Amino acid sequence: MEFSSRLLENAVNEISQLPGIGKRTALRLVLHLLRQPESQTMHLASALQDLRTEIKHCKSCHNISDVEICDICVNLNRQQDIICVVEDIRDVMAIESTSQYKGLYHVLGGKISPLDGIGPHNLTIGSLVEKVQAGKVKEIIFALSSTMEGDTTNFYIYKQIEKYEVKTSTIARGISVGDELEYADEVTLGRSILNRVPFENSLKSS
Amino acid sequence: MEFSSRLLENAVNEISQLPGIGKRTALRLVLHLLRQPESQTMHLASALQDLRTEIKHCKSCHNISDVEICDICVNLNRQQDIICVVEDIRDVMAIESTSQYKGLYHVLGGKISPLDGIGPHNLTIGSLVEKVQAGKVKEIIFALSSTMEGDTTNFYIYKQIEKYEVKTSTIARGISVGDELEYADEVTLGRSILNRVPFENSLKSS
Repeated sequence: MEFSSRLLENAVNEISQLPGIGKRTALRLVLHLLRQPESQTMHLASALQDLRTEIKHCKSCHNISDVEICDICVNLNRQQDIICVVEDIRDVMAIESTSQYKGLYHVLGGKISPLDGIGPHNLTIGSLVEKVQAGKVKEIIFALSSTMEGDTTNFYIYKQIEKYEVKTSTIARGISVGDELEYADEVTLGRSILNRVPFENSLKSS
Repeated sequence: MEFSSRLLENAVNEISQLPGIGKRTALRLVLHLLRQPESQTMHLASALQDLRTEIKHCKSCHNISDVEICDICVNLNRQQDIICVVEDIRDVMAIESTSQYKGLYHVLGGKISPLDGIGPHNLTIGSLVEKVQAGKVKEIIFALSSTMEGDTTNFYIYKQIEKYEVKTSTIARGISVGDELEYADEVTLGRSILNRVPFENSLKSS
């Protein structure tokens, strides 16, 4: 792609470094910005700068936050002795939007994945173990994605905390609500039969 | 979507104003930037700022350029008396990448589209007519997209310049190279028969 302007080329190159955005899409976005009022581009640029320089992570749960300890951790209406372990902030948002969970979170910042060079020490596992050691945690809920890396991470954390007196659980795997049985894969269907729940429970949650 | 941070929410909102990017994608992009070195975000932000504050349009052809008159217009190896009329800079880049055209361009900045509130005076039609009036143009090639708005714009410009001694042409419409005839739509196929070219010509261009 040949550009008539170095500034244009620069902007397209920077935008096309974002995941899922190629040079053509980047050019479309840049030309769109040029047609909009100048203030829109300036707001976008300063929002990105502020984000990167001022963003903090909650010292307790490692969720993204504007303050030292995030709103969820300081909320005394939430159960302080249940911790849901998730991969990143998107999972916190997804679980929060269900309004079904009233405990705390612990954001790992990823999964153990040797192929990507991510080991236990790149994640916030240490501070999770410290919380358990302190003895104030009753239950740890693993809510990582059900992949090889997720399972490895679950197991690694489990091994670190099994000597302490803490209940561990994982979120249920099964057929999605609204899904037809015949289209479900065998592993999921098999697990959902093994981990069947009393019928009265299913009445409560719906 | 509930955000744990105002900075995060701000960045996501600004990014999701870009065409084709929703809130979920914007969040994914922002989290990606947070995982990358700080310099990447800073380069992106300053590239956008520089683009918006410093970008110029060529005074002759209205193409985006870093200088007063763009590289294409000052290039004396190009034919200065043929002007190809296009909608925006992407079309210039598309035609340039074919290496088949050695004349100049004129970027309209859009098409006449009353429904979107774009009339002839929002485009650079005036300066195109001036060039023709000056008598230095031998041929105008219309290369707008083949839509109602494109055809309207072509016709409007044609009416403005028909009293001057200038040849006008439009780019050929027809079956794409490599396309199978049976999948072509009737209008395109019909036009490609009406506007058939001598067989020797087709040998030259391939």
